[in-house]
Amino acid sequence: MLVLYKFCFSKEKNLFRYLWNTFRIIPKSISFYKVALTHKSSEQKDTQGHRINNERLEFLGDAVLGSVVAEYLFKKFPFAEEGLLTDMRSKIVCRESLNKIAQQIELDKQLIVNEKQHMQYQFIKGNTFEAIIGAIYLDKGYKTTKRILYKLILKNFDEKALNEVKNFKGLLLSWAQQKQKHVELKLVQTVGEGYGKQFVVHLFINDEFKAEGQGSSIKKAEQQACQKVYTTLFC
Amino acid sequence: MLVLYKFCFSKEKNLFRYLWNTFRIIPKSISFYKVALTHKSSEQKDTQGHRINNERLEFLGDAVLGSVVAEYLFKKFPFAEEGLLTDMRSKIVCRESLNKIAQQIELDKQLIVNEKQHMQYQFIKGNTFEAIIGAIYLDKGYKTTKRILYKLILKNFDEKALNEVKNFKGLLLSWAQQKQKHVELKLVQTVGEGYGKQFVVHLFINDEFKAEGQGSSIKKAEQQACQKVYTTLFC
Repeated sequence: MLVLYKFCFSKEKNLFRYLWNTFRIIPKSISFYKVALTHKSSEQKDTQGHRINNERLEFLGDAVLGSVVAEYLFKKFPFAEEGLLTDMRSKIVCRESLNKIAQQIELDKQLIVNEKQHMQYQFIKGNTFEAIIGAIYLDKGYKTTKRILYKLILKNFDEKALNEVKNFKGLLLSWAQQKQKHVELKLVQTVGEGYGKQFVVHLFINDEFKAEGQGSSIKKAEQQACQKVYTTLFC
Repeated sequence: MLVLYKFCFSKEKNLFRYLWNTFRIIPKSISFYKVALTHKSSEQKDTQGHRINNERLEFLGDAVLGSVVAEYLFKKFPFAEEGLLTDMRSKIVCRESLNKIAQQIELDKQLIVNEKQHMQYQFIKGNTFEAIIGAIYLDKGYKTTKRILYKLILKNFDEKALNEVKNFKGLLLSWAQQKQKHVELKLVQTVGEGYGKQFVVHLFINDEFKAEGQGSSIKKAEQQACQKVYTTLFC
């Protein structure tokens, strides 16, 4: 009876229906989801003047998403090394990917936002998606969140796309060749000795500093710097 | 009976005892923990030539730790803004903190490592601690991992220390004054408009580039750059 009331008569019946249709969940506490859908441009203040918007839930959702994706990749690629797992995770959780998922599930239609600012904020959908993950986690726990994310993101994620991220240096150099840009990687520092030795590399495009990379080998440091620039350009 | 065998007669009885005494767990699968304790300097290869060391588990443990700490802070500081939560998490999960915990629980005594390399690798303990978190998660699930981390890290974490991280710029400038270094923060780029507007700041110490910070205000971008440098110096 209570469920019937929630879906048919409550003030939030549309949100209840959306959450059921999209995630197959019946919220225990609808307030988490309402906050998750409140962009800071439409934030409200509580009686003590604290700002109520979805940024805190975004912080939480981002962390839970990172953990779920890490486990998925760990199990799916039992022999992939740590560096590759990190690259694959970046690809899955980058703003572009999250924006796409948010678009697919029409999250923007649920968003409480100041319309004037709406179009100017390119990551609003992906950020709201993270906030919704935070809300689901608080309301339904880790297992349910994992089930939803597996279904929504990971099962559909193209394995080929994941494998492509192996070589950011190669990808960046290909792009540079096409665009007739000059990419330069300079080793600027080494720290420590033995297993702890770290290399620091700076990446320049047409002599302009773009990013720093760090790693236990020059190759790894270069990969990291290239990944930073590549994801900024394309993610 | 099986438990008695594990603790008294099995080849890994010392490891079983350590895990019980330290985390109050009886492992279902001891092999996770053995891998978690294998540093890459002592890695082995399986029959197909894949390297077996703790780096993959470190990747997983790091993500799970990030998620658990995020939830802890989210609940403990219900009105802290997202930026402060991020800073506090960095403080808790920084190498220095994790190294300390690993030291307290004498994790290094369990480590399988090439002794010649051991002392040269300053983060070995903290990294192994993350790998152990990964192993506990795989073996015992999210709830148990959360319980252990709450007890081990979070309940003892000094709240005052957390609050101190608010102002990295202040901390860095104090340090610079003491050491007679010249810190300079330069706004080098702005991207976008309105709510999406991002500021990019470069931080120089004695005219040498040290870090880049990015944020939705100059202050936030400066804080990020200062935090990067500060944690490199002291964490």
